[in-house]
Parts: sequence; C-alpha cells; structure tokens
Amino acid sequence: MRPDYTRIRAIAYDIDGVMTDGGIFCDSSGDLLRTYDAKDSFSVRMARMQGYPVGIITGGESRSITSRAESCGIDPEDVYLKSANKLKDFKKFCERHSLSPDEVMYFGDDLPDVPVLEACGIGVAPCDACAEAKEAADVVSKFPGGKGCVRSAIEAALKSRGLWRLDIEEYERKY
Amino acid sequence: MRPDYTRIRAIAYDIDGVMTDGGIFCDSSGDLLRTYDAKDSFSVRMARMQGYPVGIITGGESRSITSRAESCGIDPEDVYLKSANKLKDFKKFCERHSLSPDEVMYFGDDLPDVPVLEACGIGVAPCDACAEAKEAADVVSKFPGGKGCVRSAIEAALKSRGLWRLDIEEYERKY
Amino acid sequence: MRPDYTRIRAIAYDIDGVMTDGGIFCDSSGDLLRTYDAKDSFSVRMARMQGYPVGIITGGESRSITSRAESCGIDPEDVYLKSANKLKDFKKFCERHSLSPDEVMYFGDDLPDVPVLEACGIGVAPCDACAEAKEAADVVSKFPGGKGCVRSAIEAALKSRGLWRLDIEEYERKY
Amino acid sequence: MRPDYTRIRAIAYDIDGVMTDGGIFCDSSGDLLRTYDAKDSFSVRMARMQGYPVGIITGGESRSITSRAESCGIDPEDVYLKSANKLKDFKKFCERHSLSPDEVMYFGDDLPDVPVLEACGIGVAPCDACAEAKEAADVVSKFPGGKGCVRSAIEAALKSRGLWRLDIEEYERKY
Repeated sequence: MRPDYTRIRAIAYDIDGVMTDGGIFCDSSGDLLRTYDAKDSFSVRMARMQGYPVGIITGGESRSITSRAESCGIDPEDVYLKSANKLKDFKKFCERHSLSPDEVMYFGDDLPDVPVLEACGIGVAPCDACAEAKEAADVVSKFPGGKGCVRSAIEAALKSRGLWRLDIEEYERKY
Repeated sequence: MRPDYTRIRAIAYDIDGVMTDGGIFCDSSGDLLRTYDAKDSFSVRMARMQGYPVGIITGGESRSITSRAESCGIDPEDVYLKSANKLKDFKKFCERHSLSPDEVMYFGDDLPDVPVLEACGIGVAPCDACAEAKEAADVVSKFPGGKGCVRSAIEAALKSRGLWRLDIEEYERKY
Repeated sequence: MRPDYTRIRAIAYDIDGVMTDGGIFCDSSGDLLRTYDAKDSFSVRMARMQGYPVGIITGGESRSITSRAESCGIDPEDVYLKSANKLKDFKKFCERHSLSPDEVMYFGDDLPDVPVLEACGIGVAPCDACAEAKEAADVVSKFPGGKGCVRSAIEAALKSRGLWRLDIEEYERKY
Repeated sequence: MRPDYTRIRAIAYDIDGVMTDGGIFCDSSGDLLRTYDAKDSFSVRMARMQGYPVGIITGGESRSITSRAESCGIDPEDVYLKSANKLKDFKKFCERHSLSPDEVMYFGDDLPDVPVLEACGIGVAPCDACAEAKEAADVVSKFPGGKGCVRSAIEAALKSRGLWRLDIEEYERKY
C-alpha cells in the first residue's frame, strides 16, 4: 500500500548507504570522506526551500558531513554525528522541531537504523539495504543508496502537497 | 526526429550529472570535487580545437571546476559558477560570443537546467536526467551523465560539419 | 557443500578487491588510498564486538589502512602491511591468537592469496576474484569485492553461532 | 583470429580509459588524479618480474602517474607524460629497449592512440574504447578499461610463454 505522504512535515536520514552508495573514502590523515549525488542533494535543498526541517543521523563523524549538510541548507544543529543510538537522536530531532515521529520520513539501510525505521512516520530503505532494514521499512525504494532513493521519496512527499516546483527567482535569492 | 546539428556553432553544459555521473566528493576542508571522464573531456578539447566556444553553467563553485575547464581549453570567462538562474548566464554566454541561442547545444539534467534546455538550439539530457529535463530536451542521450552523453553529441555536431578528425601535429602544437 | 561456519573463531582478509572493489586511488603525494563499504565494514565491527579477532593481510602499506582498521575496532597489531608472503603473516596471526588455521575464515582475490585460501578453515573469494583464487577457495561469494562479499560471509559465521544481533546499548558504550 | 602472443617481448599502454575506467578526479589544487585496479596492476608487476619492459604513454602529466608506475616496478624513464604525439613516444620506447614495434603489445582507447594501435605488434582496445580505437586494434577486450582489459591480455602474453606463475619467495625478495 502506498503510504500517505501528505502527513510528512520533516525528513531525516542516515548518510552511508542512503545519501551515498556506501563508499567511505579514507584519506591519508584517516579522515573518512563521502561522495554525494547531485540530484539526491538537490531534492534535499528543495525540501529545505519549502520549509521542511531536515535532519542527519549518522554513525560517521567527519566535519565534511556537516559542511556538506550546510551546503544543502541544513541547520548544523540538525546534524547528529557519531550516533550509535539513533532512536535517541531521532527523538531529539523531533522534539527540537515539535514534531510527532509520525510526521517524519526517515531513510536508513543497516541494523542501527532499524529502531528509527520502525518509529518514524514513513521509513524508507534503499533497494540495497540489509534485509532487516528493508523489513522494518514502510517503503523499499526502487533505487539504491546514493542514486535516487532519497530523491524519489522526497519528490513524492513534496508532490503530495503540491510543493515540487522550482521558483528560479526564489532559488536565486536563497542560493 | 534527428536534430539538425549543422547549425550548432557553440556548446554549453551543466557539470553535475552531465560531465560527471552526479557524484560530488566532499573533501575534509568542505571543498566539493568531481571526477570527469577522459573520453567526454577529449570531445570538449576537440570542439575547442575546431574553434567552437564552450561554456560551463553550473551551480557549483569550486575552483577545481575552472581549473579542469582550462585543461580542456575552455576560456575561464566562459565558466559560470554558482549559477542559480542558468538562463541568465546562458544569455550572457551567447552575447559574449555574438551567438543566437539557436546556434548553441546545451546539456542539462535537473530542474535548474529546464529553462536553458528549452531556450537553446539543441537541448541534450543524459538518459539518467530527471523527468522534467528529459521532457524539455530535444535529444535524450543513450548515455548517462559522465559516461558518453557529452561525447556522443559533440561527435555528432562536429561530424555534421566534417570536423571530427584529429590532426596529430596540430594537437601536438596546441597541447 | 555449505561449509561449517560454527568452527570459525576468527576472521582475516586481504584489502584490495576484497574489502574494496579493487580501486586504488593514487593521491598527489603518491599515497595509495581506498574506498570501503559501510555495510561490509559494519559486519567487521559486529565480529569485533562479539570478540572475534580480525586480521588484515595486505600488500598495501598506507597508514590509512591501519587508521581505517582501527575505526572498525581492529587491533593495529593484527594489521599486516606490505605482505608479500601472506601465508607467513597468516601463521603469525594464528599464533598471536592461539588459533588453528582451521578456525580462521580468510578472504582473498588474487594470486598472492592462494596459499592462505588453501591453508585456512574457510577460504572465501569474491565473485570477481581471479580464477586461481576462486579455485583455491571453499566458497565463491555471490557478491563482488567491496560490495557484500565480506558482509555475507561474516553474517553467516556469526548467525551460525547465534551472534548476529545488535545490542544498541552495548553498541553505544563501545562505539 | 587469435593473435600470436609469443612474439610479445614488452608492453606499453595509455592510462585513462585503459588502466582506469576513464575517471579523472580533479583535486582542489587542480591536480588530476586516477584510481587504478589492483588486479590489473598486479599483472603489470608480474610482467615486470618476468623481465618485460613496460612503458606508459599518456596525455596526462601528474606526478602521481609516475609514482604509481614506480610502485608497479616500472622504470620512470619508461613513463611518457603529456604525450600528444604518441607514436613518436612509442618509437622512443622501442628504441630505448632495442625492440621492434612488432614485439610490443600496446593498449589504447581513444583517437590519439590510433596510430600506435596500428604500428604495434598487438594492439588491444578495451570494450568501451571509442569506435576508431576498436577498429585500429587487433584485439577488442571482453573487459572495459580499468577492470580487466590489461590483466587479461598480459595474462595471455605471459601464459603463451609459460611465465604466468607467482614464485612467492622471489616476490618477497623483489617487493
């Protein structure tokens, strides 16, 4: 059954395997760096322009994650790094924005995401998520992590409320 | 219907998802870096060697974009970074080279590219472009972004005027 | 025939083509850097949390390998860099942990791994390993290097002993 | 018709699209960096261990190319960077090693490689080479650039002379 996207008021996601294909590049200083998809990222920016709070809940801890989040318009206080207990951080995100968990769409792909996929309004797993995450999710995307999963679900949420449109002049002002 | 490539006198393109597969690498300083395809890039160099103005119109803003453009023979003044209103920058590019929009082939893959895909002479979208870009384009490439889309259309444009040939001695002088 | 995973008490692996897709990035200083998969890495962390010794035996020698190993909970003394004679290093790993080779699952994909694939308890080759490694292995994974090969076999080993479960509170303490 | 690999005494290749998948990463300083395949690279090392001269003839010019070549055992004087006239450099390589062009296997994938593919003993093009390179080649590999093309042809050349075998003790000494 197609979930009711109209109730979604905010978006939260894990990074690795969700906003990326799971690849973690280890540079010569040991910092862990990621490759993001332009079209997936653009949908996050669209959600922010339409006023949706967007949160990141990740086990990672590189400053480059926060830097990338900011360039998509995400508030740095909504970025939860080194999160081992993701449900706890998900609840903080909901409280900070006075949201019921039921109003939040969450994307996750591995065991630590399972409790959040179960607690949120619409849980989305990429098609290459682990079995447990796919079972816990409300929607298993046609797309893999880092290549369309986030874009297609954010598009669905915004379209359900008539908000998937780009006002170039507003975009120019906010960019 | 196959477009008439013979009227094309110049080329312009978006970067992410067009000259790349959409991957944006965020380094530890927060700079956003890209991976380009050698054969796609070589076709840009061929167009420059045959005297075609080539422009880049991108929402990105890393100096590495300009640096890469220069290594393909593109004039730095034809690189439009941090472009939110791409149609405005496309018109500047046309004016700078005294071109009618109809003489320019433009490549784009996402919502901000739609107005330019509609305004230019031949609009090309990679096969993995968003639905709106594919609809606005005159040609949907068989190839995805960063892997043949730019090459095949530039080849078609140069071949239509008998200019797809490499003079090794000239190449050696200009390289 | 499905191997008996219950006897496995420790895990060791080659890096390139096993924990990665074989890609080796050469940076401007000549350092060789790798991209790891988040879900494969998570399974290594799970094995460490359950007390399995984990060893790395690689021809590579970048400090970034040790750094990445540590972030997965691997003891730096179990990382064998610049290993040309891998069987020798495999035996050191077994001795250090008082293990019989038969109790160790080893992952390898190229000629230097063949002697270890033959000597260990369960030898695993990714589906894109070289012919000689696949022949020497007990299991040829359905998955390629850097994309599920390590995860699926570690899952099988831990599940065979009822240890594939994530205790979020313990995870939070150890993370 | 299968070419006669037994006459091959040396190997030379282009980098981009041959030893790589064509991806060129532009870092924040503008340096162009590549990702190499471990198994392809290992076959180059095998050829060097068996005494085959190996040359690189590339349009690129990053020091990281030379650095990577050295780590595969290639003599830095056999690395021709910024090569626009590749046939000229191919001839220098042959002269330096007193080889007839007919004794050299060359790998190339784009227009600048065509004259060398025609002049050498066995010209090999990856399956994703441009049409002109595939036409000029004696062998079109089943494998794409950066993923098996170089490995499979070097294996064929060494096997034709009974030299595809790894002596671990010699490997340990030379590594």
